[in-house]
Amino acid sequence: MDPNISLLFEKLIKGDRVALGQAMTLVESERDEDRKKGIDLLELCEKKLQAHDPSIRLAISGSPGVGKSTLIEAIGLKAVDQGRKVGVITIDPSSSLSHGSILGDKSRMAGLSTSPSAFIRSSPAGSVLGGMGRRSHEMITLLAAVGYDLILIETVGVGQSEHTSWQFTDGFILIVQPGGGDELQGIKRGITELADIVIVNKADGELKGLAMQTRNQYQTALHYFSPLREGWEPKIVTCSALEGSGIDEVLDLIRLYHSIRLKNANLEIERKRQKTSWLSWSLEITSKQLLMNHPMVRHSLAEAFAEIENDNLSIFKSAFEIENMIKALIHSTNSNSGS
Amino acid sequence: MDPNISLLFEKLIKGDRVALGQAMTLVESERDEDRKKGIDLLELCEKKLQAHDPSIRLAISGSPGVGKSTLIEAIGLKAVDQGRKVGVITIDPSSSLSHGSILGDKSRMAGLSTSPSAFIRSSPAGSVLGGMGRRSHEMITLLAAVGYDLILIETVGVGQSEHTSWQFTDGFILIVQPGGGDELQGIKRGITELADIVIVNKADGELKGLAMQTRNQYQTALHYFSPLREGWEPKIVTCSALEGSGIDEVLDLIRLYHSIRLKNANLEIERKRQKTSWLSWSLEITSKQLLMNHPMVRHSLAEAFAEIENDNLSIFKSAFEIENMIKALIHSTNSNSGS
Repeated sequence: MDPNISLLFEKLIKGDRVALGQAMTLVESERDEDRKKGIDLLELCEKKLQAHDPSIRLAISGSPGVGKSTLIEAIGLKAVDQGRKVGVITIDPSSSLSHGSILGDKSRMAGLSTSPSAFIRSSPAGSVLGGMGRRSHEMITLLAAVGYDLILIETVGVGQSEHTSWQFTDGFILIVQPGGGDELQGIKRGITELADIVIVNKADGELKGLAMQTRNQYQTALHYFSPLREGWEPKIVTCSALEGSGIDEVLDLIRLYHSIRLKNANLEIERKRQKTSWLSWSLEITSKQLLMNHPMVRHSLAEAFAEIENDNLSIFKSAFEIENMIKALIHSTNSNSGS
Repeated sequence: MDPNISLLFEKLIKGDRVALGQAMTLVESERDEDRKKGIDLLELCEKKLQAHDPSIRLAISGSPGVGKSTLIEAIGLKAVDQGRKVGVITIDPSSSLSHGSILGDKSRMAGLSTSPSAFIRSSPAGSVLGGMGRRSHEMITLLAAVGYDLILIETVGVGQSEHTSWQFTDGFILIVQPGGGDELQGIKRGITELADIVIVNKADGELKGLAMQTRNQYQTALHYFSPLREGWEPKIVTCSALEGSGIDEVLDLIRLYHSIRLKNANLEIERKRQKTSWLSWSLEITSKQLLMNHPMVRHSLAEAFAEIENDNLSIFKSAFEIENMIKALIHSTNSNSGS
């Protein structure tokens, strides 16, 4: 192993924040040389975690406008007050169209980002695939090995992409806003069904009454779902990130959730499932990129694009033909239809 | 060409609904034999559309709880009243966890589903990739060729997946609910920035005042975005699917949008972009599936899964090794790093 990597690991576990930033940059790099070093570093972290892992890793999901980042900051600051180390993995909200955001992550979580017991890492939106950063699992591994015990992973999107982040985390927190609970009967189950904890945010001012109604609607709806986690029924709380109310209750719930998941070793079993899911997901991304970047595929695609430009093509036929080319590119493949 | 396919096409363009259902099932099939037939059928449709295409294809997006399906039904019914033919492509809301929904699509859009001028097709949630059904583009092509002139595509998720559906449609309608406009300044731009029309739904009862506030907040926010479409500035309307108010205005906006997009042939240009995007996306999915289903990859993955079970593995190292195997499986590939 590269002696620099051993040294970096030593610094990391001593709590060196600069080293942590460097380590994250290393594992995010796609250069072959960096990847090898990054993997050595991650292997040291994995060994440390096998002996002792104090962390709970929670996906935080919610539609735009529900106050996700404000609430993450409120929860994070309160957890720091209680002596916890808080790691936050977010997606840089920079629009992928205009390549720039008015406000960056530092100003989204201004208080938390300056706390010595918190570490916020933003992945660029461009590296997000299916709701998770390409290297989020690596980030989580680094944070946990260094001793961050509350790791919050902000997800992007509501829907299919939530399934991805659900697979890689220990618990799923859904943030909703007052109103909207009325459509829960069967129709929008998909995402709510994943939630271990539902937080009705913005339970303040004129929305307070509506928040209580929404809470009750979710409470009823959650009863219809079969429990996903042994020994845990999904809980629902109201809170206000703005007024700071209900945040203690959220942290109590997280602590309770963690302790129950640790019982009967069912968190340990699930961590293994997280690893297998991550491995598959990661290889799917690689597979896609390798074939789409293959010179022959690129060439055929470029030709097809030119034909589309000239109105000269059935794209469905063309897709079928390039599909067959891709099949022929792979060594000794079975003649399965790729389904 | 298979004479049955010519026959099916003849039935289709005569407005035979049973034939349309059969055609959709055919193009959704993954069997090689069906795929060839389906592609022949789609080629006939493409030729018809090249001569004349009356359709506008709109992605309808919004977070769970904003009343998306109720609003789609209200818009669809009103459009039918006005003499339009309405095609709706939705995702079956059946939870992918419990494999069943309390209410199906028929009861979600009970009125529209019985209208002879409307056709609703649900894709199973399992076939959704990145917010779109695997064969949504095929469905759209069939509907447009048959003469459905208002095609509404319900999207899944808010975030990355919205980009996918944005790429394959002519316009993007974002449905929001009252409240939540306050976070628009820079933070949640990504999705709002895509919208050509924003609808503030639930502008009824006690939420009416808040709806107007939200409308104004979006109005202000939309000014900050650079226009995505030549000659069109994003518009925002309030409406109530419940009371039926504002629906006429939505349809007027859609008609105006369509006519402006047709001017200067910029819809024609964009349709070509839709085709290139669809081709890439479709081939990415195929690439991923082919390699992940390769016997050697499956074997190595199964081995890695067993090692994970025995706590006997660095998954990051293992991912790297299987990645290298995948690289070696592809004929005469360049030694690029797959990024």
